Amino acid sequence: MTEEVSSRRSRITPERQAELHGAVLDLLREVGYEALTMDAVAARTRSSKATLYRQWGSKPELVARALQCTKPVSLREIDTGSLRGDFALMVEHSDDDQMAKDTALMRGLTHAVHESPELHKALRDLLVDPEINGLHAMLRRSVDRGEIAPDCPALDFVPHMLIGAFIALPLIEDRPVDRDFLTDFIDAVVFPALGV
Amino acid sequence: MTEEVSSRRSRITPERQAELHGAVLDLLREVGYEALTMDAVAARTRSSKATLYRQWGSKPELVARALQCTKPVSLREIDTGSLRGDFALMVEHSDDDQMAKDTALMRGLTHAVHESPELHKALRDLLVDPEINGLHAMLRRSVDRGEIAPDCPALDFVPHMLIGAFIALPLIEDRPVDRDFLTDFIDAVVFPALGV
Repeated sequence: MTEEVSSRRSRITPERQAELHGAVLDLLREVGYEALTMDAVAARTRSSKATLYRQWGSKPELVARALQCTKPVSLREIDTGSLRGDFALMVEHSDDDQMAKDTALMRGLTHAVHESPELHKALRDLLVDPEINGLHAMLRRSVDRGEIAPDCPALDFVPHMLIGAFIALPLIEDRPVDRDFLTDFIDAVVFPALGV
Repeated sequence: MTEEVSSRRSRITPERQAELHGAVLDLLREVGYEALTMDAVAARTRSSKATLYRQWGSKPELVARALQCTKPVSLREIDTGSLRGDFALMVEHSDDDQMAKDTALMRGLTHAVHESPELHKALRDLLVDPEINGLHAMLRRSVDRGEIAPDCPALDFVPHMLIGAFIALPLIEDRPVDRDFLTDFIDAVVFPALGV
């Protein structure tokens, strides 16, 4: 599957791919997932629907890939040699404006996910699971270095803390997460829970 | 405002009120917030729209009051004399089936909230703020008893931890929160972050 996708995807340039992904995100913000059609993406990007389907296979995959490209850095690529360094770099790579935009996007998608099992699966396979795996790898390295106790019960809940904070803050305080909030939350909650 | 509401509300019996609230929640689950009409509530409960508006003022208030009545116990009513006791009682009063139902309901409402500022305000005034205030009062009593350091930075983030866990678990693990998860999460994350 991965090979098939990568051979499909190699047919257009990275610049053209970025342009297509940007157009998909613009449309997502304008009309939402349900109303987004492959016809509209084709018209906006002056490409053929055949190209879109050959390149991405389906609307859910196209949307998940477009979202994947908004992320400035993946947790899988972060490895500074200390847990505090890894989290600091994660925050440093986060962009306040981008996070505010993402919050609005993800809110719309949270609803769409429950109407479309295909979108749910594409987001999980391409966005959620790789980041959660990257986070667990980061934590395992920290355990191996002796920074976190191997039997620390909070190890299983770090994704819940971080993803939960992203969703809860707009609900509780009517504002999206920014770098200051992330830093405070990690210092006040995540590190103490991990005993760091 | 409170007096006016309570005088409006005193015109029907508590049993009839519970019946009306149950019918509103059934309709919410069946058709969602946007499609729920006062006509449908009136038809389902064999009451007049005039009664509904006199009793609840508006659709957002009716929905918020109906949701308020699904809660078996409010945090404001819990005061066992210790923080561990308060959280244990909170979990004990939670009902697994009810939480699964609530998760589905709240998911639908998260979307509706962003389309309707009136619903947002009614949910905040009648559901969210009172519970968060109850939680903060519970934490203040714990600080006064010396269980939590007064300057513990996690004190500000307890609502984010709890509400975040409720929303993040279904997204991460495809399952609603139950009492076992709540107990584990509080023991692994909330108490260590608070230094308890």
